[in-house]
This record gives sequence, C-alpha cells and structure tokens, in this order.
Amino acid sequence: MADPKAQPQAAMLVIGDEILSGRTRDSNMHFLANELTRHGVPLAEVRVVSDDHDVIVAAVRELSARYDHLFTSGGIGPTHDDITADAVAAAFGAHLDVRDDARALLQAHYDRQGSDFNAARMRMARIPDGATLIDNPVSTAPGFTLENVHVMAGVPSVFQAMVASVLPTITSGAQMLSQSLTVHRGEGDIAGPLAELAAEFDDVSFGSYPFIRNGAYGSNIVARSTDAARLDAAMTRLHALFPPAGA
Amino acid sequence: MADPKAQPQAAMLVIGDEILSGRTRDSNMHFLANELTRHGVPLAEVRVVSDDHDVIVAAVRELSARYDHLFTSGGIGPTHDDITADAVAAAFGAHLDVRDDARALLQAHYDRQGSDFNAARMRMARIPDGATLIDNPVSTAPGFTLENVHVMAGVPSVFQAMVASVLPTITSGAQMLSQSLTVHRGEGDIAGPLAELAAEFDDVSFGSYPFIRNGAYGSNIVARSTDAARLDAAMTRLHALFPPAGA
Repeated sequence: MADPKAQPQAAMLVIGDEILSGRTRDSNMHFLANELTRHGVPLAEVRVVSDDHDVIVAAVRELSARYDHLFTSGGIGPTHDDITADAVAAAFGAHLDVRDDARALLQAHYDRQGSDFNAARMRMARIPDGATLIDNPVSTAPGFTLENVHVMAGVPSVFQAMVASVLPTITSGAQMLSQSLTVHRGEGDIAGPLAELAAEFDDVSFGSYPFIRNGAYGSNIVARSTDAARLDAAMTRLHALFPPAGA
Repeated sequence: MADPKAQPQAAMLVIGDEILSGRTRDSNMHFLANELTRHGVPLAEVRVVSDDHDVIVAAVRELSARYDHLFTSGGIGPTHDDITADAVAAAFGAHLDVRDDARALLQAHYDRQGSDFNAARMRMARIPDGATLIDNPVSTAPGFTLENVHVMAGVPSVFQAMVASVLPTITSGAQMLSQSLTVHRGEGDIAGPLAELAAEFDDVSFGSYPFIRNGAYGSNIVARSTDAARLDAAMTRLHALFPPAGA
C-alpha cells in the first residue's frame, strides 16, 4: 500500500493588505491548492499577512522550517509597499541587491517596450544571493526560489505562470486520489454510519461537507487516499450505506 | 487626528481540509474581511489549517493571544471530522459537554422538523463551560464565543448569519476610510512619486495593486486612513501626481 507519508507538504503565505481589508478577493490560494494536490504535494497550511516586514520574516521562518516547500504570493513589484524580497532575504540572512541576470532580463524587456528602466523598476532586479530565478512569461520580472521558499507575484495571471514554471522543479509525491458522493440527507443522519466506516478504513480520509440547497440539507462526502484499491473499496461501502433516495 | 492604533485587531482561522485540497473555494474570508473593515476591527491575519486537533489547538492559542478577536470558520457540525469545539475548549482548558441551553434549542428544532435528535446531532449541543452561544437563524445549531474566540460554521449562509449575530457584541474601532485612484500606467512609472507621497503622509497608508487588462498595465492606488481630512489631502495630491491621460 502506498504510504501517504511519502507526500512532501507545502504551505502558502499570501502577502497583502488588500486581501485582509476585503478590497480584493484572493484567487491564488484556490489555484495553488488544486495544482499542489495534482502534483502530490498537499497544501497543509495557508497564512495571509499584511505588508509588514517583521510579520513576513517571522512567517517565512516558521513555515519554511515546518514544511517542505513554502510558496509566497504578492509584494514583489516596484512600489514602496513591495517588501517581500527584502523579508525573505532577511529570513535567511541572505544578501539582497540588484543581480546581473535579473537586470539583463528586465533591461531587454524595457528596451523592447521602449520604457524607461528607472530606479523603481530596478527594484524588481533585486534577488537574494543563492536564489534561482523563476521564469515570468507574462511580464518578465522574475520570481525566485531561495532555499525551499518560492517567491511569486500576486497578480493572478503572473502567479499562475510562475507556478507553472516552478512545479516541474519540485519532486512530486504520491498522488492523492479522491472520490465523492453527494447524499441528500442532513449530516446528522449520516454522521453515525460514516464515523464507523472512517474507523474501519483508517487509511482513507473521509470528509463531510454539508450544504443547504433550495432549503434542503445535504452533504458531499469525500474519501481520499493514495491507494486506489482501498479507495474503491471504501466507496463501494459508502454507496451501500447511503443509497440514492427511492432505490 | 484619530489614532489608528485605537482599532482592535482580529484574526481568522479557517478550518478545513476541503479548502486546502482545492475542492472548495473559501468565501468566508472575503466576507469577514469586509464586515470587519466596516466595523473598524481590521483583519490582521488569516490562517487556513487542516482538520487536525493539535494544529487547531496551537493556532487558537497563538492567534487568540496575539489579537483582540479570533473568528473561526468550519468544523462544528455533527460528523467525525467536526473537531473545532473540542480543539477550542482544549486550547483554553475548558470543560466540553452537552449543555442544556444548546440541547433545548436543538431539541425544539428537530421536534419541529420531525427529525431524530440522535447522538451525532447531540454533538452539536456540546458547548464549552463559560462560552456564550452565537445565534444561528439559518439552521439552529449554535456557534459560541469562548474568551475572545468566536466559533462559527463553515457553510457560508450560516457563517454569514453568525457574523451578523456576533458583530453587534464587539466594540467597534475607528472606521478605516479608503479612497482609490486607478492609474493606467505601469507600476514602475508611478512607484517613485508614490513613495515620496507615502513618506510625506506617514499617517496615510498607500497600497498599489497592479493589474494587466487587455494587455495594458495599470494599478489601483488605495489610500487608507482613519482621518478623513488627511485622506482627502492625500487624494488631492495623488490626483495631481497622476492626472488622467490626455489631461
């Protein structure tokens, strides 16, 4: 049987006052969660913090130490509130300055655009010593990987492109498989039998996600395992426990 | 001038494997962020964690100690994976058992429905000693407030109803006011002047939120302050710095 512990674990740090104030609805978390699930590197924790240097440094240290990978989103643009590169460098005691490889990429980009490669834009060429650049096919300014921390932009189209650049560099884990069953009964009716099944299949994780639709209670029961045969066996039992109404 | 430090700060803890796996897209964070901003109790940090007792206990302890209020979402239903009440009680060393007030609410509800008030449903009447019930006009099963932790359901309609029940019980802070300006220029062009303005108005917080629309770069610049006059002064300067194209 596949060992679910063979899965490396990831965390995400979303940096941005605009998410916490409710001004912007984050979409990067949901995107990354799906990509990591598919890659066999489950997302184990997410934090959303404000644009505060010390808070970011502390979160980067804690999450990079606890998990195999940390993905950050936001705060790597040219404006004064873009402080993620500084904070990640500080978290690892790495020197941060304009780096020739990043500067060359940006210089070529702004030359093509006919834009001025000014001091603010030069900020985006500041990359910590020892970091690897993350390709940005959307708007050129690179992200970077320092130790196990992958630093990416907050703009969703750029974030998604950077995730696509980074994931192939990350060892994938055992694929977590999932199957689900929608039961049109209140959770209170299914909880007892479901708990017994969960105790019997202790290598399959069962979640129950209730909903209220048109005034009626129901629940999506999701079973997850890295072992396809055990998952099938669990689902067979689940279908027998909760047959469709009228069956 | 109003002191922005007169604002109490809040944190949120989202509990649920289904968010981390990407199966469900969380909407409670965005809802709560807006409600708290309006109430003058800014959301300073959000964490999303899995259905793991020890992880929830540690997060509740840390966030309730660090912030004035902690709001939790998810894990208070009748199924085996609903462990939030246990974890919050454990975080404060509070005794947890079926409580008469919650049981009476649920008994009346299931009597009206003609449903069986079984052992699983009785789990939802387990409320820590010393906690205050949070009214649930949608589906009756109450949330609770223990110390400075407000424990609420994950189903969005129920979560929203519980937020409406809780907020009037929380002292509101100074209202954070915000105004924004959309500038159709790349962030690299506005970063320099914006940083100078931000340094001059150190009691106003400026954020720059870039976007790419139809292939063109732009940014929403958001200024925030609890002082209306200073905010107006900052916006006047901002409009002068970045006049509309063609003006």
